[in-house]
Amino acid sequence: MTQPPKIQPRKLKGFRDYLPGPMRLRQMVLTEIRSVARRAAFQEIATPALEYEETLLGQGGEETDKQVYRFEDHGGRRVALRFDLTVPFARFVAEHQGELVFPFKKLQIGDVWRGENTQKGRYREFGQCDFDIIGVDSLAADVEVMLALATVLSRLPTGGVTMSINHRGLLSGILKAAYGSEITPADETKALIAIDKLAKAGEGEVAKLLAAIPAHGRSPDDAASLVLRAITAKAPDGNADLDALRRLVAEENPVAVSAIEPHMERVSAIAEMLRRAAPPQGVKFCVDLSVARGLGYYTGVVFETTLDRLPGFGSVSSGGRYNDLASRFSNRELPGVGGSIGLDRLVAGLEELATATINASLNASLSGGVMVAVASNDALAYAFDVVSILRNAGVNADIGLTEGKVGNQFKYASRLGYGHTVTVGGSEMSTRTANLKNMTTGDESRGLPLADVIARLTSSSS
Amino acid sequence: MTQPPKIQPRKLKGFRDYLPGPMRLRQMVLTEIRSVARRAAFQEIATPALEYEETLLGQGGEETDKQVYRFEDHGGRRVALRFDLTVPFARFVAEHQGELVFPFKKLQIGDVWRGENTQKGRYREFGQCDFDIIGVDSLAADVEVMLALATVLSRLPTGGVTMSINHRGLLSGILKAAYGSEITPADETKALIAIDKLAKAGEGEVAKLLAAIPAHGRSPDDAASLVLRAITAKAPDGNADLDALRRLVAEENPVAVSAIEPHMERVSAIAEMLRRAAPPQGVKFCVDLSVARGLGYYTGVVFETTLDRLPGFGSVSSGGRYNDLASRFSNRELPGVGGSIGLDRLVAGLEELATATINASLNASLSGGVMVAVASNDALAYAFDVVSILRNAGVNADIGLTEGKVGNQFKYASRLGYGHTVTVGGSEMSTRTANLKNMTTGDESRGLPLADVIARLTSSSS
Repeated sequence: MTQPPKIQPRKLKGFRDYLPGPMRLRQMVLTEIRSVARRAAFQEIATPALEYEETLLGQGGEETDKQVYRFEDHGGRRVALRFDLTVPFARFVAEHQGELVFPFKKLQIGDVWRGENTQKGRYREFGQCDFDIIGVDSLAADVEVMLALATVLSRLPTGGVTMSINHRGLLSGILKAAYGSEITPADETKALIAIDKLAKAGEGEVAKLLAAIPAHGRSPDDAASLVLRAITAKAPDGNADLDALRRLVAEENPVAVSAIEPHMERVSAIAEMLRRAAPPQGVKFCVDLSVARGLGYYTGVVFETTLDRLPGFGSVSSGGRYNDLASRFSNRELPGVGGSIGLDRLVAGLEELATATINASLNASLSGGVMVAVASNDALAYAFDVVSILRNAGVNADIGLTEGKVGNQFKYASRLGYGHTVTVGGSEMSTRTANLKNMTTGDESRGLPLADVIARLTSSSS
Repeated sequence: MTQPPKIQPRKLKGFRDYLPGPMRLRQMVLTEIRSVARRAAFQEIATPALEYEETLLGQGGEETDKQVYRFEDHGGRRVALRFDLTVPFARFVAEHQGELVFPFKKLQIGDVWRGENTQKGRYREFGQCDFDIIGVDSLAADVEVMLALATVLSRLPTGGVTMSINHRGLLSGILKAAYGSEITPADETKALIAIDKLAKAGEGEVAKLLAAIPAHGRSPDDAASLVLRAITAKAPDGNADLDALRRLVAEENPVAVSAIEPHMERVSAIAEMLRRAAPPQGVKFCVDLSVARGLGYYTGVVFETTLDRLPGFGSVSSGGRYNDLASRFSNRELPGVGGSIGLDRLVAGLEELATATINASLNASLSGGVMVAVASNDALAYAFDVVSILRNAGVNADIGLTEGKVGNQFKYASRLGYGHTVTVGGSEMSTRTANLKNMTTGDESRGLPLADVIARLTSSSS
């Protein structure tokens, strides 16, 4: 029989497989996320990957809409793969509002898809872990969400992260001061998208993009440089220079000062409370007026978090307040605030950091475990007895699967790094004993009763 | 400003949201799965939801291919959402064979999509949890996979499950005996799909489907009734009557007996070892010749698991041996065996069982936790201090988020069922104390130092 030609085994560009090592890192992150959520009373929910196209489109902004995977399903419906968890969450809350207690604090973990250009640590499919609070617009809710994210990050071996905080209202105030209060919403969006590129593309590139936006009362070049000056001015402590901002806005558009004043107070208060409440290790908070976030739906505080030891790697956790997102579905006011940990970006960052702790997790051998080798086929049932007894006693135990080839079984045990092997054959079966071997020292005890095998393995692993 | 008309918040048919209660059940199942995997040395991996269409199509069978969600992506590639985890796993193994130790024992948890007709507990998006062993064709590997699944199910409050075991080789032997050894592979597949409908559609319907397949040496009606007799014959202990099978095959096609003999031995030995090794509670194993499984790629043992207390609900865990799946990609022989827990089906089954244990998990209030109520806005930073101190001390703690509305905060605490509240205002802030209230008894202690609050909460929760 002629075989059909082989297919090349390949993934789509921008998608990744997880081998066991990176998967352990990923699970380490997820375990911390669920633990922090439980401790802080965020309840986990889930929504489908596919939604009606109309539910998702028009929410993230034009650039995001272009990246959405969408198609017609078997029933002729226009459907789309979610590009984030926030927009489906707005649909979820509107649909289930009678079943929820507000303010509703939720955790949601799931994959999202965006057909964007790929780059290091940036995928077309990526896991997001979202903490959100919906049903209240309060400083406390902003702090509570950001505190949860900061607590997760503080428990991971990142070597330090910085959470940079801004407010869309401040950016709007700056843009109105620079371009004139006649600036259109569409031009504001363009400016936000330009500002969002600052860390990646640099000031020159952003200045060019900003200078393409029509200004009122000054040249676009002047407007662009005014914006750049405002968003990059730093106080001596590294935070945004809010006094300079106040002066600048007062100079250009005195009426606008009272509009931005509450936003300045809010971001300062958020940063201050986080500094007090968050775990001291590993997380810094700063006010940074250049944080814009690309998504269209934010209306209040916005923030993003970067790894201190990987400048240029980009944000591993971000979010903001979105007070109008559920209003498309519901007459009830459902203001929300949320933040996401980019699971795959964070894991990619940890892999790149490659510290001793991280490498230990990546390469974690099964050294704490034991493998039951089956020396003769007639002892297989007995070997399953033994492996079950070990597992029930709390020992991580594997079993040799290559029938009649005990040499292969030992090779397998040694490649996986098992600390011990337990060998059983016909004679051990008849006496209900086993031969225990320490794979590191080579010491072997033959004909041990099973109770002794368990005793030795449970004491050696503790 | 006129508001745009509201969009109806709705999900696609066949898709479900998870509210916090069912999500707790889902997480309970996932926690047991990961715990069993760790104990038995299955290593977790992940693959993308989207694959090249050519990777997925033609593997599950014609009926499955029709259900696959597929479309053209932004780069003009033909892509498809995975309909199971097994076919992508074959691609994964072929692509990463140099990085894996064989036999490779893996766990994979992920959603899959099939555009099939929906019914109770049957969704178009559903989570699968797959235990697989690839790289060896042995009885031990079959047992090890099924034992892992049985162990997970034995730890869940199902009220008992039955794992029914068969072998594709036995079905093939029966079909050859009934239809003549000239039966084509396509007709064998048709017959398997018919047999797979037995539990749902009943004997009459299956007989009709079987009688539509051409027989050699007898009438199609006779062939159909012979098949039905063979697959439903039971020994007094409830297992398939293998002696009757042997006699039947010997009568019709004496040469075929030696072909089915090793398969009979294998299923009997698998069932016997599982009965010895599996946890005694809650899982029964039986040999059942009517188990066929709908997927095309199985070549050896096949099995499915049903909830004893929900007859007619269908399978919650199934699988089988697939020795040829990786051969499309690789010259290396990579025989595999795997089984899946249908996460959403199982959760739907648990919800339907609605036992006291399950309802407790569904309705688990946050009674073990505490809510920090903020009596005055100026105490908010202090309230965050208190909630952080409580969380760091291991107490699940929530915080009032509705500024200036302490009455709303208490209503929220009582709706969520918190056992205690801790109230702080300006005077507590200045003395670093708090007022602790037991929400069940109504007892309140005012002005307690924080250390005392922690002591009382940690002792009451233990």
